Amino acid sequence: MQININKKDKEKNEKDAQVSQLRQDIASGDWVLIATGRAKRPDDFAHFERVKDDKGIDQCLFEDPETSGQEKDVLIYTDNNGQWSLRVFPNKFPAVSDTAEAKAISEGPYFSMPGVGFHEIVVTRDHFKQLALMNVLEVAEVFDAFQDRYLDLMNKKNVNYIAIFHNHGKEVGASIPHPHSQIIAIPVVSPYVKMELDGAQLYHKSNHDCVYCVMTEYESETEKRVVFENDDFIAFCPFASRAAFEVWIAPKKHSPYFERITDTEKVKLAEVFSKSLNAIYTALNDPPYNFYIHTAPCDGKDYPYFHWHIEILPHTATWAGFELETGIEISTIQPEVAAKFLRKQL
Amino acid sequence: MQININKKDKEKNEKDAQVSQLRQDIASGDWVLIATGRAKRPDDFAHFERVKDDKGIDQCLFEDPETSGQEKDVLIYTDNNGQWSLRVFPNKFPAVSDTAEAKAISEGPYFSMPGVGFHEIVVTRDHFKQLALMNVLEVAEVFDAFQDRYLDLMNKKNVNYIAIFHNHGKEVGASIPHPHSQIIAIPVVSPYVKMELDGAQLYHKSNHDCVYCVMTEYESETEKRVVFENDDFIAFCPFASRAAFEVWIAPKKHSPYFERITDTEKVKLAEVFSKSLNAIYTALNDPPYNFYIHTAPCDGKDYPYFHWHIEILPHTATWAGFELETGIEISTIQPEVAAKFLRKQL
Repeated sequence: MQININKKDKEKNEKDAQVSQLRQDIASGDWVLIATGRAKRPDDFAHFERVKDDKGIDQCLFEDPETSGQEKDVLIYTDNNGQWSLRVFPNKFPAVSDTAEAKAISEGPYFSMPGVGFHEIVVTRDHFKQLALMNVLEVAEVFDAFQDRYLDLMNKKNVNYIAIFHNHGKEVGASIPHPHSQIIAIPVVSPYVKMELDGAQLYHKSNHDCVYCVMTEYESETEKRVVFENDDFIAFCPFASRAAFEVWIAPKKHSPYFERITDTEKVKLAEVFSKSLNAIYTALNDPPYNFYIHTAPCDGKDYPYFHWHIEILPHTATWAGFELETGIEISTIQPEVAAKFLRKQL
Repeated sequence: MQININKKDKEKNEKDAQVSQLRQDIASGDWVLIATGRAKRPDDFAHFERVKDDKGIDQCLFEDPETSGQEKDVLIYTDNNGQWSLRVFPNKFPAVSDTAEAKAISEGPYFSMPGVGFHEIVVTRDHFKQLALMNVLEVAEVFDAFQDRYLDLMNKKNVNYIAIFHNHGKEVGASIPHPHSQIIAIPVVSPYVKMELDGAQLYHKSNHDCVYCVMTEYESETEKRVVFENDDFIAFCPFASRAAFEVWIAPKKHSPYFERITDTEKVKLAEVFSKSLNAIYTALNDPPYNFYIHTAPCDGKDYPYFHWHIEILPHTATWAGFELETGIEISTIQPEVAAKFLRKQL
């Protein structure tokens, strides 16, 4: 009798292991579906044959931005030999621009406003050295540039939110293969950040604590989803991962505002970021990916309950009808398994 | 002097025309960016060289579902000759399944629940006849099947939301080329539908009117974004289009619940749907696309302020870092221009 029950339990457990899991993002309230019944082994994801998108370095528009007709630099860093190492200039084909006023226009029941703002490109010098292959100080310089530009743009008229992001690979929107990031400063707050802000505020009200502090402390303690951590930053595969091998990086000390990062912290961030990105690069055979910073809006209000962080999204799946209809992403590997596999690459 | 002012005005107007537009979805509160500075002509989008994803009809898993090892049908329609014309069966590799209990499981600060539910495939018989090429009655039969399955699934335990969607093209997630739709019944409400529900409720509170009724009436009146309409349904490119050539189809009579559609209405819907999808097929040279139904949850609550509708999203752009960071999609054609181009195909 005892044996039968155990056998039944075992069968039930095995069956349960095949059942997928709906997981909720406790900050944004979003749901994801971890479909373990469709599970793949971690190394099944390393199958990328990258779209060759390099026209050749001689035709690269970012190799020599001045002669290829880019706009005038708004920031330039030089190395010890006086050569430029990083430069930032306005996008020649901006998604937003500062030529109009940010006033609401109504049409029947609808509202719009001119797409005012700033759209800049952050270019590092070496055409062939992607972020995943840079050393810590090179990566720190990129975050330095993000901060420099943020501090300038946040004071401009009509700028209430600044999006900082990076596309790696033609498959995920990088139309020019030379490594570059983008900064878009806009008058409206990112709807996704708004979801996180609302969730963080609600959590704070109920629990008198920052939801991201709770998350990072729990992750650091339990370790199973951690990719890498140092004293100041932690990289982990989020409990409610929207994509296989998604990695979040957050400061351990509570801070709503990315732009207040110190120089020492920047190097610590660069270490955690480098290790994580390089682990993704190795584990998944140089996959396309996007990363971006989620930080508090710069609209003059205070967001003491928010906690800035970076989200790295390797392009490991196609978001199809179900994801587009519901916003519930289906991921085919548990973040715990993904994190373990990423740790192996360190 | 007068001339100078006019010239200045003209220059200003020309410059303004280059400025992109931030448009808000008045139902969901979402923002999109119509980047006219990066505008393309409508026929620039018709460049699809579809990924050849057909292994050959002899290897098609949906050609003869019984012998290719699919699950037992839950619904089958036959034609006048007694041949099957449409069948619905459980997905062999379901994203959710009904083998576990839908109880919340906590892990530290997080929550999850087993991915319980139902995942079904709706297959039409002809391997080579995609939805865009079907006649009105064939399309009506597909919506008939959606309704039939909805009415059955909505009464199952733990089913609170039913996602009905269709992927056309490998690029947007159709792993099997044989025309098929999918139905996924889950215990949680679609976060995207939740946004629309909340927005519609808020709008109703402020304006004592359904936001979708206001929208469809305004569109029908002004005509400029209309693709096609009959007495019962209207197809239009939404004011805040997230993708070039996005089309929404909504009933003109207020109704929160797709599953309450009548047989007569289904034929009217099929007419508007067929015309729209065929226009997209012709205008964009058989592009990949997803479509899905947004209808009120079936969680036992009433949603009198909601208004069910279909959203068709042609795959005309890659959503990259900015879209992933902010949820603000950049579209490179105005919906007014897209609608005009689609109308030309009718």
